[in-house]
Amino acid sequence: MKVLVIHGPNLNLLGTRELDVYGDQTLEDIDALVAAAAGEAGIEIESHQTQREGEIIEVLHGGVGRVDGALLNPAAYSHTSRAIADAIRAVPYPVVEVHLSNIHAREEWRRTSVTGEAATGVITGFGPASYVAGLHALKQLLEG
Amino acid sequence: MKVLVIHGPNLNLLGTRELDVYGDQTLEDIDALVAAAAGEAGIEIESHQTQREGEIIEVLHGGVGRVDGALLNPAAYSHTSRAIADAIRAVPYPVVEVHLSNIHAREEWRRTSVTGEAATGVITGFGPASYVAGLHALKQLLEG
Amino acid sequence: MKVLVIHGPNLNLLGTRELDVYGDQTLEDIDALVAAAAGEAGIEIESHQTQREGEIIEVLHGGVGRVDGALLNPAAYSHTSRAIADAIRAVPYPVVEVHLSNIHAREEWRRTSVTGEAATGVITGFGPASYVAGLHALKQLLEG
Amino acid sequence: MKVLVIHGPNLNLLGTRELDVYGDQTLEDIDALVAAAAGEAGIEIESHQTQREGEIIEVLHGGVGRVDGALLNPAAYSHTSRAIADAIRAVPYPVVEVHLSNIHAREEWRRTSVTGEAATGVITGFGPASYVAGLHALKQLLEG
Amino acid sequence: MKVLVIHGPNLNLLGTRELDVYGDQTLEDIDALVAAAAGEAGIEIESHQTQREGEIIEVLHGGVGRVDGALLNPAAYSHTSRAIADAIRAVPYPVVEVHLSNIHAREEWRRTSVTGEAATGVITGFGPASYVAGLHALKQLLEG
Amino acid sequence: MKVLVIHGPNLNLLGTRELDVYGDQTLEDIDALVAAAAGEAGIEIESHQTQREGEIIEVLHGGVGRVDGALLNPAAYSHTSRAIADAIRAVPYPVVEVHLSNIHAREEWRRTSVTGEAATGVITGFGPASYVAGLHALKQLLEG
Amino acid sequence: MKVLVIHGPNLNLLGTRELDVYGDQTLEDIDALVAAAAGEAGIEIESHQTQREGEIIEVLHGGVGRVDGALLNPAAYSHTSRAIADAIRAVPYPVVEVHLSNIHAREEWRRTSVTGEAATGVITGFGPASYVAGLHALKQLLEG
Amino acid sequence: MKVLVIHGPNLNLLGTRELDVYGDQTLEDIDALVAAAAGEAGIEIESHQTQREGEIIEVLHGGVGRVDGALLNPAAYSHTSRAIADAIRAVPYPVVEVHLSNIHAREEWRRTSVTGEAATGVITGFGPASYVAGLHALKQLLEG
Amino acid sequence: MKVLVIHGPNLNLLGTRELDVYGDQTLEDIDALVAAAAGEAGIEIESHQTQREGEIIEVLHGGVGRVDGALLNPAAYSHTSRAIADAIRAVPYPVVEVHLSNIHAREEWRRTSVTGEAATGVITGFGPASYVAGLHALKQLLEG
Amino acid sequence: MKVLVIHGPNLNLLGTRELDVYGDQTLEDIDALVAAAAGEAGIEIESHQTQREGEIIEVLHGGVGRVDGALLNPAAYSHTSRAIADAIRAVPYPVVEVHLSNIHAREEWRRTSVTGEAATGVITGFGPASYVAGLHALKQLLEG
Amino acid sequence: MKVLVIHGPNLNLLGTRELDVYGDQTLEDIDALVAAAAGEAGIEIESHQTQREGEIIEVLHGGVGRVDGALLNPAAYSHTSRAIADAIRAVPYPVVEVHLSNIHAREEWRRTSVTGEAATGVITGFGPASYVAGLHALKQLLEG
Amino acid sequence: MKVLVIHGPNLNLLGTRELDVYGDQTLEDIDALVAAAAGEAGIEIESHQTQREGEIIEVLHGGVGRVDGALLNPAAYSHTSRAIADAIRAVPYPVVEVHLSNIHAREEWRRTSVTGEAATGVITGFGPASYVAGLHALKQLLEG
Repeated sequence: MKVLVIHGPNLNLLGTRELDVYGDQTLEDIDALVAAAAGEAGIEIESHQTQREGEIIEVLHGGVGRVDGALLNPAAYSHTSRAIADAIRAVPYPVVEVHLSNIHAREEWRRTSVTGEAATGVITGFGPASYVAGLHALKQLLEG
Repeated sequence: MKVLVIHGPNLNLLGTRELDVYGDQTLEDIDALVAAAAGEAGIEIESHQTQREGEIIEVLHGGVGRVDGALLNPAAYSHTSRAIADAIRAVPYPVVEVHLSNIHAREEWRRTSVTGEAATGVITGFGPASYVAGLHALKQLLEG
Repeated sequence: MKVLVIHGPNLNLLGTRELDVYGDQTLEDIDALVAAAAGEAGIEIESHQTQREGEIIEVLHGGVGRVDGALLNPAAYSHTSRAIADAIRAVPYPVVEVHLSNIHAREEWRRTSVTGEAATGVITGFGPASYVAGLHALKQLLEG
Repeated sequence: MKVLVIHGPNLNLLGTRELDVYGDQTLEDIDALVAAAAGEAGIEIESHQTQREGEIIEVLHGGVGRVDGALLNPAAYSHTSRAIADAIRAVPYPVVEVHLSNIHAREEWRRTSVTGEAATGVITGFGPASYVAGLHALKQLLEG
Repeated sequence: MKVLVIHGPNLNLLGTRELDVYGDQTLEDIDALVAAAAGEAGIEIESHQTQREGEIIEVLHGGVGRVDGALLNPAAYSHTSRAIADAIRAVPYPVVEVHLSNIHAREEWRRTSVTGEAATGVITGFGPASYVAGLHALKQLLEG
Repeated sequence: MKVLVIHGPNLNLLGTRELDVYGDQTLEDIDALVAAAAGEAGIEIESHQTQREGEIIEVLHGGVGRVDGALLNPAAYSHTSRAIADAIRAVPYPVVEVHLSNIHAREEWRRTSVTGEAATGVITGFGPASYVAGLHALKQLLEG
Repeated sequence: MKVLVIHGPNLNLLGTRELDVYGDQTLEDIDALVAAAAGEAGIEIESHQTQREGEIIEVLHGGVGRVDGALLNPAAYSHTSRAIADAIRAVPYPVVEVHLSNIHAREEWRRTSVTGEAATGVITGFGPASYVAGLHALKQLLEG
Repeated sequence: MKVLVIHGPNLNLLGTRELDVYGDQTLEDIDALVAAAAGEAGIEIESHQTQREGEIIEVLHGGVGRVDGALLNPAAYSHTSRAIADAIRAVPYPVVEVHLSNIHAREEWRRTSVTGEAATGVITGFGPASYVAGLHALKQLLEG
Repeated sequence: MKVLVIHGPNLNLLGTRELDVYGDQTLEDIDALVAAAAGEAGIEIESHQTQREGEIIEVLHGGVGRVDGALLNPAAYSHTSRAIADAIRAVPYPVVEVHLSNIHAREEWRRTSVTGEAATGVITGFGPASYVAGLHALKQLLEG
Repeated sequence: MKVLVIHGPNLNLLGTRELDVYGDQTLEDIDALVAAAAGEAGIEIESHQTQREGEIIEVLHGGVGRVDGALLNPAAYSHTSRAIADAIRAVPYPVVEVHLSNIHAREEWRRTSVTGEAATGVITGFGPASYVAGLHALKQLLEG
Repeated sequence: MKVLVIHGPNLNLLGTRELDVYGDQTLEDIDALVAAAAGEAGIEIESHQTQREGEIIEVLHGGVGRVDGALLNPAAYSHTSRAIADAIRAVPYPVVEVHLSNIHAREEWRRTSVTGEAATGVITGFGPASYVAGLHALKQLLEG
Repeated sequence: MKVLVIHGPNLNLLGTRELDVYGDQTLEDIDALVAAAAGEAGIEIESHQTQREGEIIEVLHGGVGRVDGALLNPAAYSHTSRAIADAIRAVPYPVVEVHLSNIHAREEWRRTSVTGEAATGVITGFGPASYVAGLHALKQLLEG
């Protein structure tokens, strides 16, 4: 079982600014955490980070026929990208959307997720643990 | 470690109607699933179901000083109950909101959660597995 | 053939205030009128009145397996209660929504019925005769 | 006692398309049903069908001094015609608005009735039985 | 100098209902008043009344090459008819919109005039005198 | 018979800028035109111009017991001043609102007049002739 | 003279959380403060606290024929409960709405009070002193 | 293969006004252009022009059993007529909506087409060539 | 202890018009009532009335270093004046907003107070007694 | 004559998912269809597909001085990309927007095209034939 | 070269309150800063401060024929004053709007500037340096 | 002191189209102007232009630890890119947003800047001089 992990824009700067909102862990810390949890669960991980909306679509497309699911943190694109949402609809495997902060408790515009509209499920608010929970939920979806 | 599990209105009828949206498992099935996962994780569970907005508030209040966290599926009250949201803000322990279906992919009015605004985190779209994922996330929040 | 008649909040005070809007008949008068019409039509009636949103849901649930339909006047809850609407969707029998006044001709917020969205049909504006018309329509739905 | 029955635009095509929404009865079937119910109730019926907004207004005006009430299914004009609504306000007899489908359960724009704002009452969702219920309600309004 | 006077839907019933809003003068009274004022001002009048949106457009078109201006009371069509507004834009002579009541002081939907958007000017609130004022304003526009 | 003429903010600069919208006549030209028309009609005029919202209210109040009506061009205050609207409601004589340009045909925010909501009537779009038409309408209102 | 004091949802937890918004006084402190003020003013007090919307309606109904007025802090229900608003309209005695915090200075959704729409008056922002001010205002209303 | 061509309100005045928006060709020019293109494509054309919403519905109904498709330019009715949209839904043949100007680039209210919502496809912005493109698209739809 | 009392636009005409909304007491009556209550409470009063938004700001500024608080009835400016709201934020003493009528029960636009957003508290609906209640609340705020 | 054909995000997956919405033809099929039609019409084609908003802009810019027009299917970017719209405004050649499905008949957010606002014309709803129709319309625009 | 500097409402209190938003410099400090920069640039300055909307209009009008441009900080009037915006449109010289804080980063209502809509340019967010930047920009506009 | 200058989408085409909006200077002209001003001020400049949202984020990130500030003209992305706004929030140096045209005076959608919400300050409307003013403001921010 293989899973894409896709980190959207600005997540590479985690741990350096706005620590009260996003916590003090870096993206490397999160990737290590996810890798450990994936290892225990017997899941192979392929991790990407990009600032580019189009590249997120390309990575999702690139997973067709190769992966069993994806964990996607679209960051700010969650709230604006109809194109990523259409990509999620267009790929044959389940995509789980995760957010570090609780988007329901932030600015008005962060409360609606247009990509979450296309995802299988959404997990929000648990910091890096959102990724781990997403990994487990994805496993349960795929293996039942 | 003790956790409240609160099922909101109409969830007692799960498995009897609208199976395409909510699945065919009954509330008893879900409670059994959660109990099993809780047992493995060494968590004590106290489960409630009610149709009444005020009673959800009372159960949340009743947990003060007795429980370490709560899993709450407010069902339709998610979208209207400012009073439950204020109750979540008023209790000292973390409350995780869970939904069986992906609320971001349903009718417009189901996409906004006013209770989720007050919750620590929200997990939506994984069927009964949303509860299990919520339990694990809660444990991680409490135990690090 | 058995039919629930459910009167929502404040209807117990009918005939004592706001006579120009709701008329001068009391709830007892209406229940008598409905009982008479039901008797003629060979329908058994079970009448409830409550101020509580959750109790309306409980009464609707309680009818499962026992009644053939329901007449529901949700009063102010028509305009706010997504939970009652979900209950109407969750029970297997038809629910007819009735209103004494014409909700389309009143304050803006009374013109939209979120419970009517889930009901089989809605009858509004005929005073107590709305209930009688609802009873006949329900009979026709059930018996053809 | 004499009652106008006015069928608005596209209702002449009933029973030929969109059967899942409007049912498989033709306008002739409905007119026959209404005529039978009217006969039993001792009511004289005068039935009109037109696609034209202005003609609905003319028929309503033409009833002044000749009829005791009207059953009006304005179809799509319900949602847009301020002119028909003003006509309902301008005639001295009660007008009952009827709809075959439950407008509260359809597209957003069908949930608001600007003609219903001017009508005495509105009956929606019972298929052809909406007309019969309207006839009885009108009779009760006129004869007490 | 020749001027069309066009009375929109329901104005033929003036003086019979809603006297507090529209006054107790009939359309004949208004036509007589306008005729008298036109006579004094040396203007030839051609008066029409119709319930039909399309006919108002036809009358406006029919004036091309024959009249020097028009007084138009679109009544309820003021608030909905983009087609009449386009007709006003399409004819080469000035059209003055008049209303008996002050549309700015009535229901929300009556405060916006989509036909007034295309008219040369709008006069509202003076009862039948709105027509006379419109006639004088039109004369001044045409003759300087 | 005495009538206040009140010119609101920026009207003192008429004839110097935005000639395509407001025309090339100065405020003096308009006052002369109104004075001439008033003279013919046997009306005494008292003319004011101010940039100040509060002063418009003071002038309106100052007319109580002294004047029979007012012509008011509130200019930009038409669209924002609830205080002037309350002043119009508070004085016992009729106030006619006039505008040089057709406010229904300009920017969205110019299409709603909150002062017109309180006025007896509104005349818009005829350039300086709007004032003359307002004067005549006011006379007709007062003298029948 | 007898007055109901009704505390809505979550107010029983006052003084334990969100002290910066609601202050550090407990509900017992407030009840004592109100009792003292009532004693001085010769008013008999009957105090209730409930989380339940329906129970607030029942308490209001229960006061009919027994009390002279009510002080109501509907808390979060202020912003959503059309049913409590209808109850306020349905009882014959004056109801004064009070809030500890200034609702006009908080989140957007807290600035509109649908129950305040039905109340006689609203007092907001003075902490526990809002209740005392409400008591005095009520007394003045009743005794002149 | 036979196709209705229906020109909506005001299109009979094409070529006489607003030439910068609609071009300088008259409706006769457009009909000739369409006839030529139809002749080449072996399509029989039946052309109608009307100002009347109801008549557009009648023409559409009249095509049932007689024509294979329709080209409809509803002009201003595109933006308001739910009744024409329902007619398009009610007829069994494909209806292609065409516009001379690009409605997406004009006033806000012209950007939404409620009739286009019911049409098979929409072609907008090519002047008279929109009709020709529509004819070809219709042919391709019908013949593959 | 010294308190400013500021009466906004049109309040000088109290008692002469719209008696059903604002009551029949004049501003002098209210000032006398406030003076009496202030005298009893040992508070020195300085009363102002003005129609001018800017002058309300100047009076508020003028109180800096001289007064301990202010009672402000901004009347219509409550709903529009961001500048008065900023003035309330800019002065160091508490400002209590009062209204004679219950703004929550009036026209939509009167239900939002932008000045109340900046005030310490708001009292609305008790007629002249709103001022007295405000005085007492202010005293309690200042003296504990 | 040379024409750019630009396919936006996710169109490379055509024919593999959501066949009921977009049909079962692949992008290669469409390109072949367009090439054939272009060949017949003597038009040279240069085709691009990209997921990237910025690349669509670059391709449009790259056509300056090289191509005579463009066919653009912006897919999901139609509804959000103000930057592509500005690019269309910035290039000197005509751009025709095409869509496979009828965007007017889909989700609310797909009904508005911000890129269509800048395009010369829009063709929507004819499946791959939308491209062919666009090609012909473009030819007619360029060659008359 | 001569430039008006106009400071709007409440700016006279700068440096005494809300220091975190507006900084700790007083208006005198800012005037000195601007005077120094103007001196260096060979610009003559005329500075005004007022709380009054009407007076800002009068100062702008008073500059006609006397000044070459204006720096205007309308403070709260930026967001409400259509009258000041019309004044900016009515004067023949360029007006540059400046704000101390970044209005795009504050409350929703501060993000729209209706006066900025009429200004030549807007500079926001640099504290007192906004004025200096405005002065330089104005100089460049006037002298190239 | 080093400053990034980032030009967003379509700015490379400046001086070739829409000259009335953006002026006739090319991007090279602007870069030369900025370089000259920077030289005088002793600032080192690094200039980028891109059509790609993601690349703007990358350039902003790339400045961390290398530059002291940035001048950003996000062009159309100002109005839609939440991702660029998050990037501005995530970098440790000040970002000044500049626009050639006055965005407050253009289409409705250009009046709101979501990136400006995250910027330190915004300068709009001075053509190329907006950049120079931004450079000076940035210098003042950094050097006092």
